[in-house]
Amino acid sequence: MIDRAVCAEAVGSFFLFATVIGSGIMAANLSQGNLAIALLGNTMATAAMLFVLIAMLGPVSGAHFNPAVSLVAAWRGELSVRLLFAYISAQLLFGIMGVWAAHLMFDMPVLQLSTTARTGLGQWLAEAIATFGLILTILGTVRHRAEWVPASVALYITAAYWFTSSTSFANPAITIARSLTDSFSGIAPFDVPMFLLAQMVGAACAAAAARFLFDKV
Amino acid sequence: MIDRAVCAEAVGSFFLFATVIGSGIMAANLSQGNLAIALLGNTMATAAMLFVLIAMLGPVSGAHFNPAVSLVAAWRGELSVRLLFAYISAQLLFGIMGVWAAHLMFDMPVLQLSTTARTGLGQWLAEAIATFGLILTILGTVRHRAEWVPASVALYITAAYWFTSSTSFANPAITIARSLTDSFSGIAPFDVPMFLLAQMVGAACAAAAARFLFDKV
Amino acid sequence: MIDRAVCAEAVGSFFLFATVIGSGIMAANLSQGNLAIALLGNTMATAAMLFVLIAMLGPVSGAHFNPAVSLVAAWRGELSVRLLFAYISAQLLFGIMGVWAAHLMFDMPVLQLSTTARTGLGQWLAEAIATFGLILTILGTVRHRAEWVPASVALYITAAYWFTSSTSFANPAITIARSLTDSFSGIAPFDVPMFLLAQMVGAACAAAAARFLFDKV
Amino acid sequence: MIDRAVCAEAVGSFFLFATVIGSGIMAANLSQGNLAIALLGNTMATAAMLFVLIAMLGPVSGAHFNPAVSLVAAWRGELSVRLLFAYISAQLLFGIMGVWAAHLMFDMPVLQLSTTARTGLGQWLAEAIATFGLILTILGTVRHRAEWVPASVALYITAAYWFTSSTSFANPAITIARSLTDSFSGIAPFDVPMFLLAQMVGAACAAAAARFLFDKV
Repeated sequence: MIDRAVCAEAVGSFFLFATVIGSGIMAANLSQGNLAIALLGNTMATAAMLFVLIAMLGPVSGAHFNPAVSLVAAWRGELSVRLLFAYISAQLLFGIMGVWAAHLMFDMPVLQLSTTARTGLGQWLAEAIATFGLILTILGTVRHRAEWVPASVALYITAAYWFTSSTSFANPAITIARSLTDSFSGIAPFDVPMFLLAQMVGAACAAAAARFLFDKV
Repeated sequence: MIDRAVCAEAVGSFFLFATVIGSGIMAANLSQGNLAIALLGNTMATAAMLFVLIAMLGPVSGAHFNPAVSLVAAWRGELSVRLLFAYISAQLLFGIMGVWAAHLMFDMPVLQLSTTARTGLGQWLAEAIATFGLILTILGTVRHRAEWVPASVALYITAAYWFTSSTSFANPAITIARSLTDSFSGIAPFDVPMFLLAQMVGAACAAAAARFLFDKV
Repeated sequence: MIDRAVCAEAVGSFFLFATVIGSGIMAANLSQGNLAIALLGNTMATAAMLFVLIAMLGPVSGAHFNPAVSLVAAWRGELSVRLLFAYISAQLLFGIMGVWAAHLMFDMPVLQLSTTARTGLGQWLAEAIATFGLILTILGTVRHRAEWVPASVALYITAAYWFTSSTSFANPAITIARSLTDSFSGIAPFDVPMFLLAQMVGAACAAAAARFLFDKV
Repeated sequence: MIDRAVCAEAVGSFFLFATVIGSGIMAANLSQGNLAIALLGNTMATAAMLFVLIAMLGPVSGAHFNPAVSLVAAWRGELSVRLLFAYISAQLLFGIMGVWAAHLMFDMPVLQLSTTARTGLGQWLAEAIATFGLILTILGTVRHRAEWVPASVALYITAAYWFTSSTSFANPAITIARSLTDSFSGIAPFDVPMFLLAQMVGAACAAAAARFLFDKV
């Protein structure tokens, strides 16, 4: 049972990260420099894949694909510490393989490092707010309408790609993985740590807020 | 219980208004002056966030985020007068904080006033029709298929952003809040009062129409 | 009961036709001549409004907003002849008022005639196929999963706006109404009759095909 | 019963393939050379039609429209060999008629051969991954939430059009049919066999993976 859940996290992270990076490459290739059109394609593909993966793999592993989500689940006592480490490892390793698969599909060098600077107070605030909203969405929707989690997470990310200045990474594993692609969705390795920190702050605040808003009934 | 509902209105209004303003800034920044592409991004983000917030917070507060909706609910006896004032205050205060958060995320001055003129008979008619349709959608969908309210409201606003000449504010609190941003989604403060009046007329007509169409069974 | 159903057809046709024409005007105004972007906005708004109206008014009147749908319903014995005439009248009259409301909202002359030629064997075939598919979608979805009709009809029209050369009118009332606007979604009055004929042929074939595919269980 | 299922495959393949080709022609005609906008329209139309057809015809035939799906179903013992051949024949024949209908609607020569080269290791890997994901999506979603199959397949294809370098054919019948159109969605006949091979490899791997991930409960 445990093995299967970890496999589901691996398969899901592979497809999710391949979609984020691959659709970013496709969108940038085709959009003639109009980044709003590129972001539309990137958003639509990411959200669609999130729905599919959460619908399909949610019953197997919970469909986290995101260490921040796994950490909150562990903190709430819904995931054992042993599984927590297995989940995060699977998310990182297979997510990075998804990035590399995207590079292979588009005939690009497999090993890359991003040169896209993403830094500054505005973007750190954006990551904290984006992650806060993501965790709140998951916990609130699970609480009231569990069958809507795939749609809600997909649509939350749809909105967050556009309303945050960072285009909403909101996921430590994908932040690290996106430092390994020098394409539309990349982030320079040097800028990763502050994104991770902001995401952790946002996730912690959301876990507390959800306790007040949704749990004490 | 009451406190929690008001908090839900606050959190929801914060995220909704931050999304409307933030996605407008992002869309305008990236779209190279093609306002149709900008409006596509703005629409998609707003509708997606509406679905998420109504799905998550509907069971807690009703997920109004809109004084016109709260007023109609009070008129129908579904919201006490005391809660009505608390709701409207939360919508305005935390909605405006959402506007300011959007400014901070995009490294813009926090305090702004819009210079975008939105006026004239056509736009006032548009706001009345837009608000009429929104209230009718909510009351009709709640009546027949309560579980579709998140999708219906999100999709109504999707349509209304495009079929009305005002791009459908349809919400007194967001109209006021949008006067505080000099970006894509702003409205000059001087033009706010007529929008509010038109919205109130539309909401009142819809409350009456819904009584005939949906209530007398 | 009867009056209320006819009112629902009137309100729904008003909003549907206003959305088709209004979003076409908005899209053409903003898209800097890129008609694919304009059609994206027009499609999204139309489909979104269809979902909302069918979800909200379906339980009241069946949410036809389309004489071809009403005729097939009457042929199947699901609508009395008296109601059939009332429905078609409401669809035409209030649909045309929706067109005029769109003109008023966008500060255009209320009374217009389209000058957009839409003619030729390809477009007539397109209308027959488009209407065939629409009627089949409605009858098949009602038969198997009635609660998905709003989504299926909205998504069918989303596809049909793009895969048919006529952008899929598939509705005699809206074809006539669209001859009264000289904007993005118009059709020259002279070209209307052949569109109506093609739609009737498509609808009749679909009613027969649905009998074989869905009814004889 | 059998005849009706085969008819459903025929009707569904006709509409699906007509949508893929027709929306590609429409999108390319209108998008002024911006291929990202064209792909947005092509994606939206294809995904929307997939939802509609699977919702409507799923209860009749399973709504395969894809020999890879039918082969996996036969391998799993869910489709007899005789029906397998009838399904694949209907998919190919009526799918190609859908391509020709698209040509007729857009006043293009009916008989065409594509001149669009789609070849290379990257694209073959893309087809294998795309088909792997499609089959996994179908088997996983059927297993856990059968009523979400229309949405999941539609959204999977939405993502796959963007994250794979081949724009995700993932269907041997549509690959063959798309060699018969020299428009946006075409593929040169010479490049078809390697696409088919890659799709078969992906489908076989997915059938095995699904057995481990979803079946042994």
